[in-house]
Amino acid sequence: MNINLVCVGNLKEKFTRDCAAEYIKRLGAFCKLNVVEIKEQNVLENPALVLQKEGEDIIKNLKGFVILCDISGEEYSSEIFAEKLEKIFMENSTITFVIGGSYGVSESVRSHANARVSFSHMTFPHNLFRVMLLEQIYRAFTILAGKAYHK
Amino acid sequence: MNINLVCVGNLKEKFTRDCAAEYIKRLGAFCKLNVVEIKEQNVLENPALVLQKEGEDIIKNLKGFVILCDISGEEYSSEIFAEKLEKIFMENSTITFVIGGSYGVSESVRSHANARVSFSHMTFPHNLFRVMLLEQIYRAFTILAGKAYHK
Repeated sequence: MNINLVCVGNLKEKFTRDCAAEYIKRLGAFCKLNVVEIKEQNVLENPALVLQKEGEDIIKNLKGFVILCDISGEEYSSEIFAEKLEKIFMENSTITFVIGGSYGVSESVRSHANARVSFSHMTFPHNLFRVMLLEQIYRAFTILAGKAYHK
Repeated sequence: MNINLVCVGNLKEKFTRDCAAEYIKRLGAFCKLNVVEIKEQNVLENPALVLQKEGEDIIKNLKGFVILCDISGEEYSSEIFAEKLEKIFMENSTITFVIGGSYGVSESVRSHANARVSFSHMTFPHNLFRVMLLEQIYRAFTILAGKAYHK
């Protein structure tokens, strides 16, 4: 099982890098994880141009089943999220998660998504959101493996 | 404005302590933050007993308007959450947020809550959830102050 995580921007702060690193380490027991950091465009530029440029880079890195993290996507409990991933992995060897940039993602990226998932009605910063996503993917694997972590 | 954060258990891992410390530092510009860590009871004990013991300690530390973090609570966008906090602070100098333990909180704690807020349908570990809550409180203050952070 391969997880391909395509994110706009990098983790600038040590404290989120350390958090992400912890879950990446733990995920190593369950899957092959690949993290692709797309160059963040200057937010002072025209938003449409930012979305277009970032979108082109995102699309080049999509593989397998594509799940877009989107505040208006479907909401799941951790258990249902785990079941969804299990089903997807029955027919795909790779799941790509996409975390957009400051302006979200372009319509073109959106049209490449096979599913859209929302973690919260609230907006979180990209760096913390990346940690939240990694934790939920790790939690999903522990739920599927019947491990005690998630309880 | 005082924020009183009552949590069951402490942050064992350095990576979440560092994340929490960052938002606590940033919150210093906006409010007086007090963090109370309630002793986590042994989860191998009877759940009802765990909830009762932790509940008694939680209740002793409640002040002002009490918001319980609860997966089945109300869901808000970050903007609406900020507005809610602003309204509460018009009539209260202190808001207490409660994060329960492994089994949640007792009915007695629940009955002391003036409001219940849900961040996600998903379950997050207490340590990461504490960071998410601190970040959203910080975000709320920046929204109310009209700062650019949240955009």
